[in-house]
Amino acid sequence: MEPTHHSPRRVEELRGRLGEVASLDGFVNAVRDQKRMQFLIVDWRGHLVQVAHEKAGESDALAATIASLTIGSAVTVKGRVREAPSVKLHGLEIEAIGLHIHSLADSPLPIAPDSALEKQIDWRFLSLRRPEHRLIFEVQTTLERAMRSYWAQAGFIEIHSPKLMGTFSESGADAFKVEYFGRTAYLAQSPQFYKQMAMAAGLDRVFEVGPAFRAEPSFTSRHETEFTSIDMEVAWTHSHHDLMALEEAWLAHALGEVARAHGAAIEGALGVPLAVPSAPFPKVSMEDAQRIVRASGHLPSKPDDLDPEAERRLSAHVKREHGHDFVFVTDYPASARPFYHRRHPDRPDLTESFDLLWNGIEITTGAQREHRFDVLRAQAAEHGHDLTPLSSYLDFFRYGCPPHGGMGVGLARLLMVMLQRSSIREATLLSRTPTRLTP
Amino acid sequence: MEPTHHSPRRVEELRGRLGEVASLDGFVNAVRDQKRMQFLIVDWRGHLVQVAHEKAGESDALAATIASLTIGSAVTVKGRVREAPSVKLHGLEIEAIGLHIHSLADSPLPIAPDSALEKQIDWRFLSLRRPEHRLIFEVQTTLERAMRSYWAQAGFIEIHSPKLMGTFSESGADAFKVEYFGRTAYLAQSPQFYKQMAMAAGLDRVFEVGPAFRAEPSFTSRHETEFTSIDMEVAWTHSHHDLMALEEAWLAHALGEVARAHGAAIEGALGVPLAVPSAPFPKVSMEDAQRIVRASGHLPSKPDDLDPEAERRLSAHVKREHGHDFVFVTDYPASARPFYHRRHPDRPDLTESFDLLWNGIEITTGAQREHRFDVLRAQAAEHGHDLTPLSSYLDFFRYGCPPHGGMGVGLARLLMVMLQRSSIREATLLSRTPTRLTP
Repeated sequence: MEPTHHSPRRVEELRGRLGEVASLDGFVNAVRDQKRMQFLIVDWRGHLVQVAHEKAGESDALAATIASLTIGSAVTVKGRVREAPSVKLHGLEIEAIGLHIHSLADSPLPIAPDSALEKQIDWRFLSLRRPEHRLIFEVQTTLERAMRSYWAQAGFIEIHSPKLMGTFSESGADAFKVEYFGRTAYLAQSPQFYKQMAMAAGLDRVFEVGPAFRAEPSFTSRHETEFTSIDMEVAWTHSHHDLMALEEAWLAHALGEVARAHGAAIEGALGVPLAVPSAPFPKVSMEDAQRIVRASGHLPSKPDDLDPEAERRLSAHVKREHGHDFVFVTDYPASARPFYHRRHPDRPDLTESFDLLWNGIEITTGAQREHRFDVLRAQAAEHGHDLTPLSSYLDFFRYGCPPHGGMGVGLARLLMVMLQRSSIREATLLSRTPTRLTP
Repeated sequence: MEPTHHSPRRVEELRGRLGEVASLDGFVNAVRDQKRMQFLIVDWRGHLVQVAHEKAGESDALAATIASLTIGSAVTVKGRVREAPSVKLHGLEIEAIGLHIHSLADSPLPIAPDSALEKQIDWRFLSLRRPEHRLIFEVQTTLERAMRSYWAQAGFIEIHSPKLMGTFSESGADAFKVEYFGRTAYLAQSPQFYKQMAMAAGLDRVFEVGPAFRAEPSFTSRHETEFTSIDMEVAWTHSHHDLMALEEAWLAHALGEVARAHGAAIEGALGVPLAVPSAPFPKVSMEDAQRIVRASGHLPSKPDDLDPEAERRLSAHVKREHGHDFVFVTDYPASARPFYHRRHPDRPDLTESFDLLWNGIEITTGAQREHRFDVLRAQAAEHGHDLTPLSSYLDFFRYGCPPHGGMGVGLARLLMVMLQRSSIREATLLSRTPTRLTP
């Protein structure tokens, strides 16, 4: 296997070939065409390498080819590797022998590094060429790999649940409708129903990483109409505390792996120190959270939930009191949670639920689920749901279902907070909002 | 971390606790209520364990609870572990002290092990409780993990491309339409456009595992309207031969890992020997494939493609001649392939493309892509495409794009062939066909 992109081994191998002819594929990063010399910087799989050519007069075809190059063009350069201590790029230079243009870029490029975010997204494939943008997706790759290594050693099964559904999984108001062979299907707002089905099926511990869709006409910096949802569901849990313990261990492991692989690069390119959290994370009940937020001088807009300002104030309080960037908000009132969250036996107005905030932003919603068919049906009715479209879901609980619980985490939201980006769109490969379906 | 589901360590730990009181969670697998004794088989995270109770007369509440149990109920049994050499299940028995019913199953269950496949799917959460069905998803989990370990060491970046698109990515005829804030969006038929975008963005090597959608009114045993697509795209490839070499190495690695982890279980539960293929796989050009199939006495329904019968005959021929279960069919005529497949420089009627057949069934389509903007646009027009809806895709090639190629693999199709299932629905968690949107 040849050295991978960004591998330092690539440059080392080039250094080992001083005096030899090498072939380098890459994007043209810069061209300097001087009177007697031409210099070319090629982005060679993440490494900038200088190429030099001494002009040989009018009939120099290579010089003409180099002169025609534009920024971004895809080329293969053939040349002799030579030591060049004065060249900042690895102290190496390629003395050009030949150059093949695979794809000549239009000039000028339609965006600049300082273009507005929306314009960067319009030309996403160009903005991604910048190393600090690419880094976000290298981090994403490592993050998911680390999550999966945790799941693997804990015996989780991976599922792929359908995104086309016969009914909506959360609220009907924000479900996208699909024309489906003469009837209407809905796009899954979460894999909620199916990861619970897996519990009734005895799959014991499952995870899914896949798209979720919300038809909310929302234009905040932390919402997309389509996003990658990371979901877990675990059987035989006793309460939401088992689930919070799982999430702490899982996140600490995953963030530890990211810090190990990319900590220095993240600090260097984005100026963000990545601190790995220690478990357990602080936990605050919603009742206490409301008190804390009110005491800070902010009146939460709802008595049973936290608005974004309340989330920020609560996190700031926890950071001051406990020195921790994470906080679980627990035991939400039933009015603020879906019907399938289990209630406290001694406080039926409260659910065995939690949200996880990181630096004041919600990254997880989770709960112990109601697994008893009769209680679940009663709670659905109490929440005002029509039971007919829910019948296929309710069936899962009719033939024996273990107690269970789970959580959902937005991947881009997590990356946004981790890398302190101002918009979720910086951590999303291709943004989807009510007004954006391209590129 | 406690021992995982199906872990032999679970039973060993139980054996180490002879004489002690243990607590077991599980589904009721069988109940025998005799005159003086009651026996219960509990499916304890994949291990069947016998529980015994000696009745103590009229006022025996535990006996009454056990007598009320139905198959499939979720229970926690508390009891003393004792050696019982005559008990086939691990030579162990639990002498019941208490039993808690979490969820009492309705009786009888609506399906039996020999119910028809469609009925099994109607009650998917019940059919999945059978170990040989569960095994398919354990294999799936290992298979994906092994694919990812290959990608990780080869430096691939994971992407999640949008499933909501402003235009269709393959043919308009089989794209699902979505109501999208007053206009029409389309569900991605593949991540084709976006994995190619990643090449223009310099991401070098990418993979994606995610849903793809086809609105084909198709009812074969190997098509679903929604399926999990495994996609790769790699920059700086010279031809489709680089891509076939990649797929061979990747598949041999992944299948080797599956055989190591589950080979014995697959053979035992499904009666299927899992042979790990050796690379390179045989390769046959479409021209030669047509000749071979015609010589076998079958006239392919199209001169530029293989119908299912032709695929079976070609695979049988390769098996006979080369002893190999896999065969790459290469160099399809341009008429049989999408406009974005690159053409041979010396044979512009042929594409640098391939399909991979395994035991006579197509599991992959791949190709070197056309990366030159002008050529790509001309090929799209030649294929009769309206260039306006394609403009956002064509833009990817305007500012420098390296030569690249890739492939797509259907996950359930791969599992279906690997495990010799008669229908793709056996290897799909929840089936979606033109007439099925539930469960």
